Amino acid sequence: MDTGRLEAFSDGVLAILITIMVLELKVPHGTDLAALRPLLPVTISYVLSFIYVGIYWSNHHHMLHVTEHVDGRVLWANLHLLFWLSLVPFVTGWMGENHFAALPSAVYGVVLLASALAYTILQQSIIARQGPHSRLARAVGHDRKGRLSLVVYLLAIPLAFVHPAISGALYVSIALVWLVPDRRIERILFDPLLGEAHAREAGD
Amino acid sequence: MDTGRLEAFSDGVLAILITIMVLELKVPHGTDLAALRPLLPVTISYVLSFIYVGIYWSNHHHMLHVTEHVDGRVLWANLHLLFWLSLVPFVTGWMGENHFAALPSAVYGVVLLASALAYTILQQSIIARQGPHSRLARAVGHDRKGRLSLVVYLLAIPLAFVHPAISGALYVSIALVWLVPDRRIERILFDPLLGEAHAREAGD
Amino acid sequence: MDTGRLEAFSDGVLAILITIMVLELKVPHGTDLAALRPLLPVTISYVLSFIYVGIYWSNHHHMLHVTEHVDGRVLWANLHLLFWLSLVPFVTGWMGENHFAALPSAVYGVVLLASALAYTILQQSIIARQGPHSRLARAVGHDRKGRLSLVVYLLAIPLAFVHPAISGALYVSIALVWLVPDRRIERILFDPLLGEAHAREAGD
Amino acid sequence: MDTGRLEAFSDGVLAILITIMVLELKVPHGTDLAALRPLLPVTISYVLSFIYVGIYWSNHHHMLHVTEHVDGRVLWANLHLLFWLSLVPFVTGWMGENHFAALPSAVYGVVLLASALAYTILQQSIIARQGPHSRLARAVGHDRKGRLSLVVYLLAIPLAFVHPAISGALYVSIALVWLVPDRRIERILFDPLLGEAHAREAGD
Repeated sequence: MDTGRLEAFSDGVLAILITIMVLELKVPHGTDLAALRPLLPVTISYVLSFIYVGIYWSNHHHMLHVTEHVDGRVLWANLHLLFWLSLVPFVTGWMGENHFAALPSAVYGVVLLASALAYTILQQSIIARQGPHSRLARAVGHDRKGRLSLVVYLLAIPLAFVHPAISGALYVSIALVWLVPDRRIERILFDPLLGEAHAREAGD
Repeated sequence: MDTGRLEAFSDGVLAILITIMVLELKVPHGTDLAALRPLLPVTISYVLSFIYVGIYWSNHHHMLHVTEHVDGRVLWANLHLLFWLSLVPFVTGWMGENHFAALPSAVYGVVLLASALAYTILQQSIIARQGPHSRLARAVGHDRKGRLSLVVYLLAIPLAFVHPAISGALYVSIALVWLVPDRRIERILFDPLLGEAHAREAGD
Repeated sequence: MDTGRLEAFSDGVLAILITIMVLELKVPHGTDLAALRPLLPVTISYVLSFIYVGIYWSNHHHMLHVTEHVDGRVLWANLHLLFWLSLVPFVTGWMGENHFAALPSAVYGVVLLASALAYTILQQSIIARQGPHSRLARAVGHDRKGRLSLVVYLLAIPLAFVHPAISGALYVSIALVWLVPDRRIERILFDPLLGEAHAREAGD
Repeated sequence: MDTGRLEAFSDGVLAILITIMVLELKVPHGTDLAALRPLLPVTISYVLSFIYVGIYWSNHHHMLHVTEHVDGRVLWANLHLLFWLSLVPFVTGWMGENHFAALPSAVYGVVLLASALAYTILQQSIIARQGPHSRLARAVGHDRKGRLSLVVYLLAIPLAFVHPAISGALYVSIALVWLVPDRRIERILFDPLLGEAHAREAGD
């Protein structure tokens, strides 16, 4: 079974997810700037989630580019990932409409964490099929960014109850780490947090 | 006429169906756990339907993989299947929002039954075109899972009026039968029900 | 410019149109049969429109199958067709929710008429590019079904004000003409109406 | 990395955007012509945005047709364009429902301007990758239409506060410039505005 239709279906779902989030931006009734102001938090959470879905699409694209064949297990690992991503519009709306309250911000992190785990499972399923010397296995390597993301989401969830701005800043930072292909950003943002792990992996 | 565009269109419709169901998860106004609680039944019915649409996509994918050409009849048999699947978001929402009441749970089964029949018709249309010795005809064989599903849906519909939990359990069981590619599950779950038929087919 | 992406984009739009119509089937609050009854007219109009969009997809599919190249004019003729079809969910909902009242039934016919004209324009644009001896030009021939549809829609629009059931019956009949690939249906349904034209074309 | 999946994903997003705008056309409750009248401004803004999304799809299609490879930068420039286009349904609804009031008409122009800038950035990213002698670089040339559009949007935004009809007329004019492949239209509509620039480029 080749990857063509898996990609087509995933593209379809991701394209719909990235687009229906905008439906949470309800058309306001007023026509002055004051009518737009209540939309600001929803817009901010929309931008964040747009970038996250974009990152998933981009990584998914790269991963399947070095994948030759898929089996039933990969197919369901992929659907599992799409399931968690399908909850992104919901948590985006909930967090935005409630001005980044504690619980919605934490639940947003739960969905990010579950999506990241599902992505890791999908990656492992493909590597399991293609072998440890496959192009994908080598490209992934130690998957530092992936592991960093998991750790940061795990921290961001409880920290939302200290102050939601902390988890917000962590979500934005991880998005930047994926968006900007430059290790220095990771070092600046997360060295105090993961410094030792970095040091240990310096030989990567 | 080759299968490319039939697959693309079906992928599109299935991707949209699997995604718009999540729109039934209305963003709650509160920000505490109590605000999420009413969403629990809708979420459960969403997960079930997500898996069912995933199963249809996966089976559809495999079926068309061993199909070489399609004609007008296959095309309409495919649209007929998509029609019944397009009602899945509606019955998912109805069943979930009413906490698995009797009638919505039964109607959910009716849509599952109609979808399964439509899938069987599509399968027969393709086999009719490709001949009884085609790869698809051999892959389908006696179609035990397909027939098992039809029988169980037929039972689950009236049983919803005895107790909706019975039909709920049956819907989940059939999803597991398709999800986990292992005959033992079928035997454990449905041998008391279909034991004799199994025995007769032991030579499969 | 080849037809691949034109087909992909059209498939996307048609898949979305055929699916978002189902969003007009609002999940009812009650859980008895009485709660479903108000949905009956919406469901009927949904089924009719589902078949119509299916017919357009199927015909579009066949037309582009015998098209080799497209230019800017064809591209815009295609977008023009998609525009009119994009109004189908709106008129479907309006007609269904108002129990097939006169004006909504007539406006439904206007959208069908405009879509049929747009399809004819698209067909002519492709033939203009490919020449009168192209496979498409020969396949289309006198386009009896196309012309019959235009005439019947033109009649159905004013007849909605005599009784909406008349236009309803005409819309269903044209759907059947396209659905069932058999000239006898056309003869039985429309010979009294178009008898002479048929006679004249007997040599087709 | 080839362009196939980038096109598929963009087609998906654009197909959804062009289609969900029609959801702003809320089904009216009445059944007479008076019930349709309030929909007129929404319909007009829908037609305008449908044409704009169609223009973007068509230009995107042509641009990627002469693009051979894409990298991460192109991929994100493309997502950036899709982000701004994803706001089109929102501003379309806001402008239409408020009968082309000043601020919504200006904000509509802001989204058009940002989309045009995002398109220019995407174009430059591809040219940067493919080199100044690539087919795309030569096809784009001085990109007169692109620069004209940017200037006109910049003018239309403040002019909405003089009278929204002025910006409306400017948006329609730019749509026509892209729609009709004929330089004379540009000359007739915009020569008083950009006359000198045109004169200087006469040697194009």
